[in-house]
Amino acid sequence: MTANQLTVSQALERMRRGLLSPQELLTDCLDRIRQKEDSTQAWLHLDAEAAQRSLAAPDKAAGQRLLPGIPVGIKDIIDVRGMPTSCNSPASSHDAATRDAAFVGLLRAQDAVILGKTDTVEFASGGRRARTRNPHDPLRTPGASSSGSAAAVADFMVPLAFGTQTAGSVIRPAVFCGIYGFKPSHGAISLEGVKPVAPSVDTLGWFTRSAADLALVAGGLGLALPAATAPSVGLKGLRLGLCRTPYWHRAELAGRAVLDRVADRLSAAGAELVEITLPAPFDGLAEALDIISQAEGGRALQTEYVTQGTRLAPDFRQRVEQASALSANELLPALDLVAACRPAFDALFRDGPDALITLAAPGVAPLLAKGTGDPIFCGMWTALHAPTLAIPAGRDPTSGMPIGIQIVGARQSDGALLALGEWIAKVIDPAASPAREEN
Amino acid sequence: MTANQLTVSQALERMRRGLLSPQELLTDCLDRIRQKEDSTQAWLHLDAEAAQRSLAAPDKAAGQRLLPGIPVGIKDIIDVRGMPTSCNSPASSHDAATRDAAFVGLLRAQDAVILGKTDTVEFASGGRRARTRNPHDPLRTPGASSSGSAAAVADFMVPLAFGTQTAGSVIRPAVFCGIYGFKPSHGAISLEGVKPVAPSVDTLGWFTRSAADLALVAGGLGLALPAATAPSVGLKGLRLGLCRTPYWHRAELAGRAVLDRVADRLSAAGAELVEITLPAPFDGLAEALDIISQAEGGRALQTEYVTQGTRLAPDFRQRVEQASALSANELLPALDLVAACRPAFDALFRDGPDALITLAAPGVAPLLAKGTGDPIFCGMWTALHAPTLAIPAGRDPTSGMPIGIQIVGARQSDGALLALGEWIAKVIDPAASPAREEN
Repeated sequence: MTANQLTVSQALERMRRGLLSPQELLTDCLDRIRQKEDSTQAWLHLDAEAAQRSLAAPDKAAGQRLLPGIPVGIKDIIDVRGMPTSCNSPASSHDAATRDAAFVGLLRAQDAVILGKTDTVEFASGGRRARTRNPHDPLRTPGASSSGSAAAVADFMVPLAFGTQTAGSVIRPAVFCGIYGFKPSHGAISLEGVKPVAPSVDTLGWFTRSAADLALVAGGLGLALPAATAPSVGLKGLRLGLCRTPYWHRAELAGRAVLDRVADRLSAAGAELVEITLPAPFDGLAEALDIISQAEGGRALQTEYVTQGTRLAPDFRQRVEQASALSANELLPALDLVAACRPAFDALFRDGPDALITLAAPGVAPLLAKGTGDPIFCGMWTALHAPTLAIPAGRDPTSGMPIGIQIVGARQSDGALLALGEWIAKVIDPAASPAREEN
Repeated sequence: MTANQLTVSQALERMRRGLLSPQELLTDCLDRIRQKEDSTQAWLHLDAEAAQRSLAAPDKAAGQRLLPGIPVGIKDIIDVRGMPTSCNSPASSHDAATRDAAFVGLLRAQDAVILGKTDTVEFASGGRRARTRNPHDPLRTPGASSSGSAAAVADFMVPLAFGTQTAGSVIRPAVFCGIYGFKPSHGAISLEGVKPVAPSVDTLGWFTRSAADLALVAGGLGLALPAATAPSVGLKGLRLGLCRTPYWHRAELAGRAVLDRVADRLSAAGAELVEITLPAPFDGLAEALDIISQAEGGRALQTEYVTQGTRLAPDFRQRVEQASALSANELLPALDLVAACRPAFDALFRDGPDALITLAAPGVAPLLAKGTGDPIFCGMWTALHAPTLAIPAGRDPTSGMPIGIQIVGARQSDGALLALGEWIAKVIDPAASPAREEN
């Protein structure tokens, strides 16, 4: 086993025990990138020299470091000092950023090593796609828009990478690539230095290869982790809400099967599964999110529209041109609907389930020719500002591709959801059996 | 009259008629700054050479330019290419920004001339104050936090400057300094490149010396200006809601007097004035905004907290330390309250008044020793995401200081509010009489 195959937690443990050096980890990650980048195409910018310099001169501030020597990929709509922020667009300035995005500064303070920028759908929202392929099948999408970050982690190039989610761009690529993804409550982590898509819903997220890693990173970013209400000794007594959502008719056979299989396993492990039907107003969330994304998205690209001419792709130009009319007529009802649903959603968890279990995508990763996949099972949770966590659940027997589910909690229940994710992962992810974790 | 005393509209008109060159305007503004900066202290960074270069090489893009040659000041929490963004803080990087904030790019596309960065309360929200003095009395505050921008416009250094408002940092300094200020609907203009304070309420705003200028700038920034419902021939038939707010007990004599005087004048001009009492849940808006500002504000400075140590002022450190607990317990009820009040506020205008008229501050600008003034009459409209516009209304007879009021509209009624502002200004601002406007 080479060091690039280790999870964040495993690598840190080996480093603590003197069995691995940060230099070895970096070298193995760079070797892996060299071997696989031609086929996976996860990176838009790689700076091995800057990474080496980080290792040679770790940050000087005092205190315990949570991510010492951990190589990290950053979605290329996010500023990293000394690297261009291309947004995968000819309409974006490709000058090197002089400042880190706020959370990148936190990563550096934890002595993480920023290795480079990962490919993304243009401006994380339209235009041209990432060139990235799914590491499990180069003919399939890794899922938009944080494609490069998900694929880099799934392909063992880095143990940790960051993306953003406006509809489903963290959770969907995570399950398409067979890894873990976490999107915290909206607003939990500053988006200063991240190109906006739709600010009222945009949320940072990250990808790892274990549930424990997701929580470790949350701590490193200063995310408030209230005392977990999740079980300390297993799933017994937990109530999980099985939520098929108003969009169940769009689930494919593979998706329906995995949710049934996961529910059976969790029941067998002692959890109580209850079917949850969302109140009627929630039926409008997908359409509302679409309006918000279009209207706010148009405003976010107003400057590119005015200054970049036809370098800005036609679908973005159209979005900007339609944003005014949308804002005047449809944006406020959409914003008010999702705002009213948020406390109603939180209320479902009072004397209700500890978390919801639901699909993360209709099925497995589609073929590249069919697009980047459908965010329909993700968007409503993003609009609700709820934390959500993607967990792999083995492979779909028909396609052989990875498949997974997501768990969703009330706003600000991030800590409990992360703890719960670790327990559920032990039951449903064949790669996360306790035996392997202890190895 | 020197050119620096002209409003934006007046300067543009003279330039169109060949009576003024952009170079003369810039020279007069720079001369004025040279004369007055020692006492007013509006600027943290001035770049006359960059301004000269802008004049020599106007932006190349096609189309009509709305602000050609207009010198502009930018609050120093906003990125301007080639200038440091100090946030008036030792905890901020003072490296020159490589990119313009999104709206600054729009200003350049209108051929505006970015002259420099104006002083601000530290991180626009606490810590140390701006050094700026009120141009009408150097012993008084210009009002926080967009102090420098308001004072630079009031002191005839530039005809246009930009600030931000999280509670009352555009509207309050505007009336304290006797000028016009506009805060559009939340989200109307991208805040990319602006240091966040509390993203769910932060809004860009601008200062000018006429109501017409406010609207001109709105157009230049691509703000949707729906067909104005404001009167084309005066105030006759208009309904204006006189709103004393739940905080009327905090209004001083000067404030109470100016609202009465303005109401009388508008009645005399033909408007129908109706007293508006806000529904009971609105009583909680000020406290809710305070919680949002503290909790979101703590998250916005998390990176500075971790990386800058004691260079970050004690009140900010405390805010970061308390943000987690606030977020877990009080933030969501506060966010949900203001979200529920927003559509209720808009509903007040259906078959109701065309706009509200209300105080912008309890009284005139306080003495510097007493702080930067109370945002209590501004915060609720900011929390409601409503557009609001400050209009000068002469001088308080007791102190001799400028005093003014604000008008507030439903969300997304920015265009109508700007048009209404022009009519109301003609009635209540002695400096905006039609005779003078035509001059």
